[in-house]
Amino acid sequence: MDRRHFLSVTSLMGAGWVLSPEINRDHYEDSKSGYSLPERAQKLLDAASKPAIKQDVLPLNPVILESVELLKHGRQFLVRVRNNEGAEGIAVSNHLILRYSQSLFVETIAPFFESTDARLVEKTIDDLYRSSYLTPSTYKWQGIQFWSCIASIELAILDLLGKLVEKNITHILGNGRIQEEIGVYRASGNRGNAPEEEVDFFREQVEAIGAKAIKYRLGARMHYTDDSTKRDRALIPLMRESFPDLTLYSDANGSYDIQTAIEMGRLQEEYEYAFFEEPCPFDHYDETRKVTKALDMIVAGGEQEFSMRQFIWQMDHNVIDLVQPDIFYFGGLSRSIRIARAAESIGMTCTPHISGAGLGFLYAVLMAACIPNAGPYHEYKGVDQDLPAESPGISFIPQNGIIRVPSEAGIGVQIDPDFVSAAQHIVK
Amino acid sequence: MDRRHFLSVTSLMGAGWVLSPEINRDHYEDSKSGYSLPERAQKLLDAASKPAIKQDVLPLNPVILESVELLKHGRQFLVRVRNNEGAEGIAVSNHLILRYSQSLFVETIAPFFESTDARLVEKTIDDLYRSSYLTPSTYKWQGIQFWSCIASIELAILDLLGKLVEKNITHILGNGRIQEEIGVYRASGNRGNAPEEEVDFFREQVEAIGAKAIKYRLGARMHYTDDSTKRDRALIPLMRESFPDLTLYSDANGSYDIQTAIEMGRLQEEYEYAFFEEPCPFDHYDETRKVTKALDMIVAGGEQEFSMRQFIWQMDHNVIDLVQPDIFYFGGLSRSIRIARAAESIGMTCTPHISGAGLGFLYAVLMAACIPNAGPYHEYKGVDQDLPAESPGISFIPQNGIIRVPSEAGIGVQIDPDFVSAAQHIVK
Repeated sequence: MDRRHFLSVTSLMGAGWVLSPEINRDHYEDSKSGYSLPERAQKLLDAASKPAIKQDVLPLNPVILESVELLKHGRQFLVRVRNNEGAEGIAVSNHLILRYSQSLFVETIAPFFESTDARLVEKTIDDLYRSSYLTPSTYKWQGIQFWSCIASIELAILDLLGKLVEKNITHILGNGRIQEEIGVYRASGNRGNAPEEEVDFFREQVEAIGAKAIKYRLGARMHYTDDSTKRDRALIPLMRESFPDLTLYSDANGSYDIQTAIEMGRLQEEYEYAFFEEPCPFDHYDETRKVTKALDMIVAGGEQEFSMRQFIWQMDHNVIDLVQPDIFYFGGLSRSIRIARAAESIGMTCTPHISGAGLGFLYAVLMAACIPNAGPYHEYKGVDQDLPAESPGISFIPQNGIIRVPSEAGIGVQIDPDFVSAAQHIVK
Repeated sequence: MDRRHFLSVTSLMGAGWVLSPEINRDHYEDSKSGYSLPERAQKLLDAASKPAIKQDVLPLNPVILESVELLKHGRQFLVRVRNNEGAEGIAVSNHLILRYSQSLFVETIAPFFESTDARLVEKTIDDLYRSSYLTPSTYKWQGIQFWSCIASIELAILDLLGKLVEKNITHILGNGRIQEEIGVYRASGNRGNAPEEEVDFFREQVEAIGAKAIKYRLGARMHYTDDSTKRDRALIPLMRESFPDLTLYSDANGSYDIQTAIEMGRLQEEYEYAFFEEPCPFDHYDETRKVTKALDMIVAGGEQEFSMRQFIWQMDHNVIDLVQPDIFYFGGLSRSIRIARAAESIGMTCTPHISGAGLGFLYAVLMAACIPNAGPYHEYKGVDQDLPAESPGISFIPQNGIIRVPSEAGIGVQIDPDFVSAAQHIVK
């Protein structure tokens, strides 16, 4: 059994195994058929199809998962995995999503991972996605709930693998650990307040963490109104006047049509903004592409993209200039790093998106530390006060706008053992 | 209160209100800006943005929803809605999806519909989709679970509205009731069996229901293998030889790359197949488009499309030739009919997809009866034996390959009252 698993991973490693979204990709390369994809698409697909977990750093012996558990304490959800020798990995999940995904997690997704080799987690995710394990077929469940369950399990597995090889997961992922400190931007969730109130909000926040960059919201979320446009037109210059030395980002959450997006983009260009996130609804590819083409400034997006192939499509067809996979919604660190790697292959920057729940900001820091094309500043929305977790020597409150990258083994976080042992084990 | 609702729906009706995916679409029409969408895209968007519920058939007075309940009996899920005068609508849900979506349904989606006017259900769905009612924002939850909950509620609301005006819902939807009998095709869920076994399966099924059309599976589901290709190459001619007079459809469930899809399509053309469903993975738009362009036969798809805008994009860019929204996965009859209407505007056919759970086949029959561009045959996978439901004068087992369209008020189905009263009411 052990030997078979060992041979299996070894032969996969040797073969340079590839992952979705490609199926039997040799066929794409048959240029005689005339049916191959364009070179740029192929380059992106190639980059995204290589595993993001560094196989040469993994344990030499199989790491067979014996249990995958969902734990709940207050509103927080934890995932704990154990191998058949009692070693343990643990991760904090995204409670906003897991709250409505418990039965999907414990009845279907978690059992699929049991008895698999943790070293092959990327292949296990790929196999699950294309399987008929769920009814209807698993791939039909692709979405925020499915991928957030997967991401939570993958994080716990990475924690386990890191602890087994006594390395922080930044040494296991992507290009390995290439940064020790990550700059953050403070993001605001406000919308509809007066421009002056938003400035006051940021004055306080910027001072508290020494942020060098901020991101605020435009539009009215998936639509705009006369009131929101009036606020937008006032806020864009006012933020620059109020924070002359900061890097400014904006996020329209898909509020605009083409013309209004271009108007707002031009105004941001005048005031030297660094990116403009989701000017049009996330699934309006043609509209967003027109905006991106018309503007000189960077258009960012990808937070709502669940499909690996469509994310690559967006890059290939210049829908967006900067990619923002959400580490939970998109299914975990390895899938997000594969998107970053595809972006890197065509010279694009990646700033992973993360919501404010649990340890999201820290996962973004860990990811940014091991990709060469990370943006200069990453999302920070504050810390959940109800989560007793710490990382030795690391402040979760940024200092001078910086968070140091955890360096302890695994994820590098210690969750209060009393908190964990008092958690409820969610069962079928 | 009543008067305000009445005015509200009246003014909406008068204004010819439009729905997602458009935001402030007037701006798209400003041709001077140079940022409008191409004419074909605009035509599709216009067609999809008109309500699918015939507003002139609705009750004159507000139908305020007092309760939206989820009931469970065995594996079946029912949704029951009541207005503030005690009238009731009920629908059978898709138990395959609801099984893992109960908390999302009862804690979040159902309460959003309470106190709304049932006549404005399309607007309520649109408002919910673009709202921040869920955290993170509702639109981020778009997927099979979110839309199947919505679809189930909409079906119960349509049942209520139909009962109030004493008309079958076919009179309320789309172009109104334009067909009394719907042809079905028998679909097989088999894969991996020997070609001869698949023929035997269909001989029995075709005889049982007098089917004039059948659909079977090719490939290995989201990938292919040497074995599956061998089966495919044998099955395509064998099915035609075995059923010379039947209409033949195939479904690859996204199994192929471009080249293999074209090979299999050419073989089907030789044997006069009528459509080829999902030759490439559902989210491989460029690959599918190349296959569609290369082949003369009809390429069908759309079952996994959750986004209204992307569905229209697929039509606009000729990714597929025939559209197949799933009545549950895509969020209900009104959204599916809006896709059918967009398809009609450019001369495309629509055959809604439906899984084998609950009364799905009957919802497909009802939809086909009120759209002018319905295909000749619609999906039939057999009847759930554990669901005591009947429609007066209608056999749920097709006769001569035909199911008659229910004509009683509402959905036109009576569920055994003992079954309903013995069901468990799922609460928060």
